[in-house]
Amino acid sequence: MTNVCKFPLGTPADLTASEAASAIAAGKLTAEALVRACLDRIAETEPAVHAWAFLDEKLALEQARALDKGPRRGPLHGVPFGLKDIIETADMPTGHGSPIYAGKRGARDAVCVAACRSAGGVVLGKTVTTEFAHRHPGATRNPHNTAHTPGGSSSGSAAAVGARMAPAAFGTQTTGSTIRPAAFCGTVGYKPSYRDFPVTGVGDNVPSFDTLGLIARSVDDLALFRYVVMGLPQRPLAAVSVKGLRVGFCRSAFWDRAEPATRSLLERTAEALAGAGAKLSDFKMPDGEATLPEAVRKVSGYEFARAMTYERLYHGDKLSRALLDGRAADGLNCSYEDYRAAERTILGYRERLYAAMEAVDILLTPSAPGEAPEGIGRTGDAIFNNLWTTTHVPAVTLPAGKGPKGLPLGVQLIGRLHQDHRLLEAAKAIEGQVLDFR
Amino acid sequence: MTNVCKFPLGTPADLTASEAASAIAAGKLTAEALVRACLDRIAETEPAVHAWAFLDEKLALEQARALDKGPRRGPLHGVPFGLKDIIETADMPTGHGSPIYAGKRGARDAVCVAACRSAGGVVLGKTVTTEFAHRHPGATRNPHNTAHTPGGSSSGSAAAVGARMAPAAFGTQTTGSTIRPAAFCGTVGYKPSYRDFPVTGVGDNVPSFDTLGLIARSVDDLALFRYVVMGLPQRPLAAVSVKGLRVGFCRSAFWDRAEPATRSLLERTAEALAGAGAKLSDFKMPDGEATLPEAVRKVSGYEFARAMTYERLYHGDKLSRALLDGRAADGLNCSYEDYRAAERTILGYRERLYAAMEAVDILLTPSAPGEAPEGIGRTGDAIFNNLWTTTHVPAVTLPAGKGPKGLPLGVQLIGRLHQDHRLLEAAKAIEGQVLDFR
Repeated sequence: MTNVCKFPLGTPADLTASEAASAIAAGKLTAEALVRACLDRIAETEPAVHAWAFLDEKLALEQARALDKGPRRGPLHGVPFGLKDIIETADMPTGHGSPIYAGKRGARDAVCVAACRSAGGVVLGKTVTTEFAHRHPGATRNPHNTAHTPGGSSSGSAAAVGARMAPAAFGTQTTGSTIRPAAFCGTVGYKPSYRDFPVTGVGDNVPSFDTLGLIARSVDDLALFRYVVMGLPQRPLAAVSVKGLRVGFCRSAFWDRAEPATRSLLERTAEALAGAGAKLSDFKMPDGEATLPEAVRKVSGYEFARAMTYERLYHGDKLSRALLDGRAADGLNCSYEDYRAAERTILGYRERLYAAMEAVDILLTPSAPGEAPEGIGRTGDAIFNNLWTTTHVPAVTLPAGKGPKGLPLGVQLIGRLHQDHRLLEAAKAIEGQVLDFR
Repeated sequence: MTNVCKFPLGTPADLTASEAASAIAAGKLTAEALVRACLDRIAETEPAVHAWAFLDEKLALEQARALDKGPRRGPLHGVPFGLKDIIETADMPTGHGSPIYAGKRGARDAVCVAACRSAGGVVLGKTVTTEFAHRHPGATRNPHNTAHTPGGSSSGSAAAVGARMAPAAFGTQTTGSTIRPAAFCGTVGYKPSYRDFPVTGVGDNVPSFDTLGLIARSVDDLALFRYVVMGLPQRPLAAVSVKGLRVGFCRSAFWDRAEPATRSLLERTAEALAGAGAKLSDFKMPDGEATLPEAVRKVSGYEFARAMTYERLYHGDKLSRALLDGRAADGLNCSYEDYRAAERTILGYRERLYAAMEAVDILLTPSAPGEAPEGIGRTGDAIFNNLWTTTHVPAVTLPAGKGPKGLPLGVQLIGRLHQDHRLLEAAKAIEGQVLDFR
């Protein structure tokens, strides 16, 4: 039950990505020193946390030294980051959390990798994923208490950032796989609007929902990476005030599945927002919320079973029972007509949600039912994430103190579709002006 | 100006996929004999046609012999097929029509490959694609007249099937890349409803439009492959009558870009359909048809530039000017706001089209402006394809005689979204009952 987060502060590994980028740009820090600090932190904490699936210190340091010698490459110059091990790289293997792909290398860098490297970022390595970003967990443990899960499926990315082994790491979310582990590990997590971050080079799970996202330690970091990944000019977050922000408090149909500490945290956050001048309202979800999970289950199963065709048919003996007997079996039993009918249910719900959200700027809702559960055999409940993944709207989780077991809690903010920049500005305001009780 | 289609009839290579599958199932033909016949045809015609990017006779024959020795694997038992060279295979390189990927091999089979192999299909090899399925052409020539383009971007798949080197080959369509070359090469082409055929393992171009499809020689062949690729039980096409079929004759806003022979062919086909008892009507496209291409251009450019991030940033010197100066440059100049606004324009148009199509069973429209243009520097005009790709509805092209230069012409049938099975049934009826003048 080590808490590997009790490290001495003050090394460059403790800088956020934005802080590190600024320090390097100002000539106060080298990429090599930063990467070395991250590698030192990894040496110290990795034996207990198991966040990494592939790490090549030499390669990381080579990338950093090349950057220190050359001209400034871009906004990420010298900033190290991790990659969930379903994201392809030409110079490192991509294991997909499965023995089927152990040691296998793709032919190129995924779009997010090429974009970040070209902007000066340094790939530290590959972080542990559950098997094909589904349920079967890897060996990763929560850095705040290694007896607990870090969450999944972006387990290694969340644990690595939570343990300050890397300032940022990419994750993906098909159900709750970025926001939930980010909250469990005390980090900032971001699931962009669907397909804002290109997924070319990222392994498929359920293409209708698969969303590439980021785990970091400040909202500024999310914006820093966002525009690089999207191939757009940097656009700094404006300093907005919480005052006047229209916040819908969304307890959802699943409020009774939130633990008391989470309910209390959310209520206190809502009060603090109102106290800071935000326009709070109770957000009523559109009709159909409670029945949506069944439609999502059908679409997820149908698409997942097909995305896994090669692995099922040619390497079935190397797949977990959780994968074969769960979502894949489910999907093979689903007819085309049922699949498309479930999709229409979801499309209808999306439209109703987008219309309802026109009355607010953001929603406030739990990131997870509570703290990270004990044990690493399961990665926790995605009930507070699934709906937002399904409806394609952007989500951010912010760390917000600790629960009764001393593990991190998060609050989740939901933005309107394709209004990610405004969501990040609101999140930054809340991070700075409201969540100081964390 | 060879017409390599003047081959002697009567070898197993002249069977359609369905005929071959039946002959093998009945014990009248072996997979090896069929593959040998295809390889013989390739030896005869490939020097003039250049349809193949990768061919390994030994590997193809090994697959066939293994099938002949073993139990029946499934509905494609012993049927050879080609793969557009952007479709990944674990045992053959995937070149993407670019020196960047020449000889490079992926880590797995694409979903369509694994599904077809598992059902007994034999991968003959990889067919030539334009550079990354965009415009810059490969060396392929039209088998009906080698001075003419086979169309693109699925150039090799269309030419290989047109020359009867393989009974079927997979293509993809982001603009007009399956239907147009299929028509130019005198074959049956099929672009399914968007994402009916899983694209896992198929190279990205414009993810919002990229559609995996098939080129073959009969409508039955399309159905045979369709259910295998989709991981669904086989569902034979019912024998429906043209009588009573509600056919909307869609001249579209671009009718004046169709050559006289095409306009005449379509008018004659409409008359023949009416004569056979179909309920013909003039289909008026929803408002906005003429302005849609501009929205499509924006979305295509934006997504393509990003899908090509790794290649642009790390191998730009190996990309064609057509790619860099065309769609990619276009996309890099497009703002996020313009991109999402263009997407909304398309979404709105889609909904109006789906509503308008409720009044018909299928639409009848040109497959291309005319015969395949002379020269292989350009692959032809996609003006009669783009709209259907963009709106995600299924399309089939059927061969329908020759044009003034003696090259094939096609007629295109459009189905309602996710009603592909009904489209194929209607197409089969029209293939058998109406298009006997071809």
